Formats: sequence, C-alpha cells, structure tokens
Amino acid sequence: MMNYIEVLTDKQLEALEKQFEELASGVQEILPVGEFKAKLAKSIALGKPLKVKLGLDPSAPDVHLGHTVVLNKLQRFQAYGHRIQLIIGDFTGKIGDPTGKSEVRKQLTDEEVKRNAETYFKQFGKVLNMDAVELHYNSSWLSELNFEDIVRLAGKITVARMLERDDFEKRLAVGKPVSLHEFFYPLMQGYDSVVLESDIELGGTDQHFNVLMGRHLQEHYGKEKQVVITMPLLEGLDGVEKMSKSKANYIGIDDTPADMYGKTMSIPDELMVKYFKLLTNLPVEKINDIELSLNDGRLHPRDAKMLLGRILVAMYHDHSAAEQAESTFKSVFQKGILPEIIPSVSWEGSLQIGILDLLVELKLQTSKSEARKMIKNGGIRLNGEKVADDNLLVTIEDGMVVQVGKRKFVELKVNQIK
Amino acid sequence: MMNYIEVLTDKQLEALEKQFEELASGVQEILPVGEFKAKLAKSIALGKPLKVKLGLDPSAPDVHLGHTVVLNKLQRFQAYGHRIQLIIGDFTGKIGDPTGKSEVRKQLTDEEVKRNAETYFKQFGKVLNMDAVELHYNSSWLSELNFEDIVRLAGKITVARMLERDDFEKRLAVGKPVSLHEFFYPLMQGYDSVVLESDIELGGTDQHFNVLMGRHLQEHYGKEKQVVITMPLLEGLDGVEKMSKSKANYIGIDDTPADMYGKTMSIPDELMVKYFKLLTNLPVEKINDIELSLNDGRLHPRDAKMLLGRILVAMYHDHSAAEQAESTFKSVFQKGILPEIIPSVSWEGSLQIGILDLLVELKLQTSKSEARKMIKNGGIRLNGEKVADDNLLVTIEDGMVVQVGKRKFVELKVNQIK
Repeated sequence: MMNYIEVLTDKQLEALEKQFEELASGVQEILPVGEFKAKLAKSIALGKPLKVKLGLDPSAPDVHLGHTVVLNKLQRFQAYGHRIQLIIGDFTGKIGDPTGKSEVRKQLTDEEVKRNAETYFKQFGKVLNMDAVELHYNSSWLSELNFEDIVRLAGKITVARMLERDDFEKRLAVGKPVSLHEFFYPLMQGYDSVVLESDIELGGTDQHFNVLMGRHLQEHYGKEKQVVITMPLLEGLDGVEKMSKSKANYIGIDDTPADMYGKTMSIPDELMVKYFKLLTNLPVEKINDIELSLNDGRLHPRDAKMLLGRILVAMYHDHSAAEQAESTFKSVFQKGILPEIIPSVSWEGSLQIGILDLLVELKLQTSKSEARKMIKNGGIRLNGEKVADDNLLVTIEDGMVVQVGKRKFVELKVNQIK
Repeated sequence: MMNYIEVLTDKQLEALEKQFEELASGVQEILPVGEFKAKLAKSIALGKPLKVKLGLDPSAPDVHLGHTVVLNKLQRFQAYGHRIQLIIGDFTGKIGDPTGKSEVRKQLTDEEVKRNAETYFKQFGKVLNMDAVELHYNSSWLSELNFEDIVRLAGKITVARMLERDDFEKRLAVGKPVSLHEFFYPLMQGYDSVVLESDIELGGTDQHFNVLMGRHLQEHYGKEKQVVITMPLLEGLDGVEKMSKSKANYIGIDDTPADMYGKTMSIPDELMVKYFKLLTNLPVEKINDIELSLNDGRLHPRDAKMLLGRILVAMYHDHSAAEQAESTFKSVFQKGILPEIIPSVSWEGSLQIGILDLLVELKLQTSKSEARKMIKNGGIRLNGEKVADDNLLVTIEDGMVVQVGKRKFVELKVNQIK
C-alpha cells in the first residue's frame, strides 16, 4: 500500500490526527497501529470511506450496554463518514451445533434468524444510523462454497495456528473435547472479510483470534489486509465481572428510563470514566476533562454519575425521559418519598393471592424462591409497608403499590367488573 | 446386528471357519475380529456378499508387488463371492495441495485422473476379475457436499482424535506445519464408506487411522460399522526396507518375465514365506506345507523360490512365460551361458557410438553416470566380453549382444538401409 500520509496537506494531517485520536480512544488494541493510520490517511487523501466490519451472532439478540461498546466505536467511525458492514452470522446459526452438545448453538430456522436480526437492527438503531449501514447475511456466500473451495480455504491455515486459540488450547489441555467443526467458525468469520474486503474489523477482546483470522485469510487471498481493533470487555454494575445477562449485572438497552438511570447510579466510582469512554459518544477532550475534574475534586462522583445516567437514558430513550428519570431518582433517593410516576398494571388475577405468587405474577420476581429471599432481606413493601411474612395472603385493592428493592414500583389497577 | 453364527448349520459353520482362515491369513490386524466373523456369518446365512472397499490414490498408478498385497487379499474375498468396491480418490487428486507445498499432491486434470485410473484397472486385471468389481470415483458424491454438510461431517470427530494420527502428531511435535486441510483427507476417505455402506475396508498398516475413520463415521451416520483389515507392508528385495519405487528394491507388475523371475530369486530366504502369503493365492494349507518343508529341510530354499518365481510370472504374464523365464534363468545362472531368448532391439541410431551413449540410448541405464559406474563395476559386456573403458567407441554390428549385470540382455538388429 502506498504511503498516503506523505501526500496529505497540513490540514488533512490535522484531520488525520484528530480522527485517529477519537477512534483509538478506549480501545484495547489496534493491530497494527501503523496500518490503521495509513488506512485513515488513504481514506482522507482519496475521499473514500473505510469499510468497518462487525460480525454478529444471530442467536443472542438481547442487547445490553456491554454490547454497545463496539457499537459506540462503530458510531464514531460512522460519524467520520466511514461505512459500517454488519454481518449476521446466519450461516452458522442455521447449522447449529452438529454434535448436539452445545446448548448455546441451537439450530435456528430462517424465521428465527430473521426475527433475531430485526431485533438487533431495532436496538442498534439507537446508536447507529442504520440507513447508512451495509447489512449482510453470511449464508449468502458461505452456502455457495463447495468442498473444493473449503479444502482450499482450510489450506490457508495450519493446525498449529488454530490450536493457539485460547479456548481450544485450554480445552485440549484438560482433555475436554473440541469438535473439529469448531475450527470452521473462525475460518468462516475470516472468509467474510475476504468477501467483503473489509478495511477494519471490530470485536471484543474475546474475538482477538477470530478477527485476526480475517486479516490472515485476506492476505492469502491476495487482498489488502484488514486492521484489527478490539474493544475491552465492560465490567457490569458489580464492578468485577464482565457485564452479562446471566450475572444480572447488566443494563439492558431496552430497560426503562428509571431502571437505566438507577442502575447507572449504582456503578462503582472507579468504573465511571471507563463507562464514559466506552458507552457515550462524548468527545475525547470532554471525557478527559471529566476525568481531571473528578481527580482534583472539582466534580463530585455523584454528579458525574448523574450526567452519565442522563446521557445513557437520552441515547436509548430521549432527553425528556432522561430529565424525568433524574427527577424521579432525586425525589425517591434524595428525599426518601415515593416517585412521582409509578407504572400502573391492570390486575386481572384473583383478588386474594399469596405474596409470592403476586410478585411472580407481576414479573417483579422471576421465581417464588427469589421472591422469598427478597422478603427475607426486607426488600418487599406493600403500600410502603415492609412485608415480613412470605406466607402473607394479600387482598388486592385498586391503587395498591407494590415495591421491590429501592427502585421498582408497580401500582395495581383492578378491573372492577371482575 | 443379529448374531447369525447361532443360526448356521454345521456345514455353514465349517464354510465360515474355512473362509475366515483364508481371509485372515497374513493380515496385520482385523478390527474387531468378532465383528468380522459375524459379518461373514451373516453373509453365509443370507447368501449376500459383503462389500469390501479399497481406496486408491489416483496420482501414483504404477503398481509393484508391494501394492498387490491388498489386491491379493481382495482377490481372495472375490473368490468367496464378495463384492469389491474400488474407489478412485479423484476428488482430492483434482484439488491437489492447496498450499502448493507438496510435490506429491500435485493437482491432476480430469484427463490425468482418468488415464491413471485406467492404468490401475489394467494392472489390477492381472489379479482381480474386474468385471465383478464396483468402480467408484469419490468426486461424484464429495463434490456434491456443501459447507453445511461439511460442518456436520467435521462435527462427528474431535480435534484430539485427529491429532492422534501418527504423522500429524509427529509433525506437530517437531514444529513442522500440518495444514488444516490435511484433516479432511481421512474424513473424505471415511465418508466414502458411509456413502458406499462398506462392510470391510482394506488398507496397508499405514492406512490404519484412515480406515478406522470410515468405521467411526459410519457409526455416527447410523450405518452398520465396517470391519477394518490392514495388511502388513512388504519388504523389498533387500529384505529390509518397504518395497518402493524410490528405493529400487521392487518388482513391478509390468516387469518382464525374466526380470520378475530373476528378482524373485534374489530375495532373502527369510522373506519367502511372507511373499507366498501376501503375493500369491495359494491355499493357506499349501503355504503352511511349504513353510514346514523349508523348516525341516525337505524343501530347498532355491526350489521354493523358483516355485514362487513361476507363480508370480504366471500371475502377471502366463504359464508359458513362467516356464520360459525359469529355463532362461537356469541356463544363465546354473550353467553360466547366455540365455536362449534374448530380446532384440532394432537399432536406428549411429553405427559409431560411445559406450555410455549406447547404454542410455538402449535404456539399459538411466544416465551416463550410472553407465559409467556399471562399467567400473565390471557389469557391462559386449558379445560376452567385459567392457573396461567407459570412453570405448562402439562399432554397431547386426546381432551384437549388449549385457548389463547378470540378467539384462539386448540383441541389436541393425537397419541395413541406413
């Protein structure tokens, strides 16, 4: 590749540096940094956008803020005019796990793939301008490959290289089975980059091996090699574990404004700057400023967290929802009273019901045993009064307020005809 | 599988034992023996032939007696009415080596595959009844597989299992590259057995892993598992190394009767019984008898070897050629005179020619340097007289006899018009 940096004007060089700084902010690694700068320079010199790829697993469409780390980075690329390539990995999704052993890789129908993809796109629309995004389903090229093509593809990589992948190495070392077909997933993901001639591929740090595969295969197919950018994994609300659904330490992007705001207020102070960097699209200098102000005491952590909460709610809902969430939060937690707005639920069930059944029925608790624990911990209130007895038989009344923990409230509307 | 042994009549049981003894004779391993007997019993009970598979590499059609070890075993199966499945592995042949690194796996055209296959069949016809053989080209089913089929195929086997293959393990251990596509060759060979529903697969001991793969895959595709029979590798004329073209210790099945007979006479005595077992279709009791007679001195090794020579020449030429080869051999080596029949060659070259050029021109030596060595060793004679000078200018005469070593003779016929 020609070195375009040398042909840039001073103004273009300045633009290059700014773009580089923004795009490199908060990333885990850029491989290799030199090529990344060269690609940006070429894009500026020729006025041609870069193709920035992100592969998506079609089996898990529920998006939480942990997932938006890469989306936010994509959004910054988009803001600089680059072209986003979203690839739905439907080909593997439709195969599922041929050994039948993996719960995670269950076989999806065309219908499910489509529905999951749409769920993604709807959620992604909160961060990206979806009109300017290329959407691809990798089955459209992978299903066209025959055995000969695949043997040639597999011929581009050595077994030793494949065995370097962390999870393969670890599983083999302890004698856990690695099925041979698993070697194909990185190959497929890499081949997607060959077909799409991607300039850059983004992924979480757990995707390090797979995204490098794209670079390797592009080279062997005589294409310009993509630059690999990995993003750090985001710790969840507990500040320790990776944000994940199963750990219940997540903020979902479909969470209500009140939940999203409240959960944001609960993150450890040390995580705040990382959240600003990875989850918002504030300019780098603004984030640097927040960090400095926190460090020298000009900014109170609570106030910074409230700003973060407002930004996040505004991103995934809107500004007025953000204001509302903030004022609700203030009234509940700073003044100790019930929030002004409590969601109401129309109650059509029995008017005499055990407290455990009630909590599960209202979806305030996922199971009776969870509900029992919560009562034991003093986390359940009816009309403001703590419930102590998990055998309590509740008589439902119109307007009754059920409260779980500090932030979840429901007001019951009883259907009078019943 | 039902146990058919229990339903056999006494006569059938006797037939089973005889078949088993013949077919198990001389093999390296039968995996598992019990299933082999059960399959034979089923075949006898139902009057249904077994399907006995042999896979062939289409890139090396020159057959020597080392290759006929499996052919002879197939011939015995055929003699008991079983069905032979010959599979030309043309699919891999046409792919070649996608890394471009292997000299052995060069890419073959359709034309070459067809020509090589025909060469095989012509040569195999000397051992097998080719009219009763099924011929298959595995490209006919392998080229139909798509990526999804292949992922499912690969899902049937673990990486750990694949790494157990001797040569993979050794190469990885010393850091030599194993290209990922090489994992496919055993899978393909195994899948052939799934498609053809083979009952038995034959191979050399070096095929142990690959033929077991067929058994493994059949099980995973819900088929009856094939029994694996491997044949020992045949040592060449030197009695030490595996018979191979590159070691020049082989008897080619297209060798002249005189060469074939003479080479047979040169094998070490210790190898003789093995050669009888693996290369002839003498009944087991006859071979046992030869072995006993050799051991107690009733049979002279030279006489046994002459019998072996006659049998081999008769197999690959005919009985009169065998008689002729034997009497020629006797007259040369037992009486020390020129053989009765010397092949004549019409000489159309220059009538004055250097001895080195002459030997190469007549294809009696492969190169001038080889010819020079042979002269130095006293191995070249003209009309019975030893040639000492490798610069000798020979004046060609009609009827001139050129002799190389002990067994190669050529009589020159000079075109008189020239």
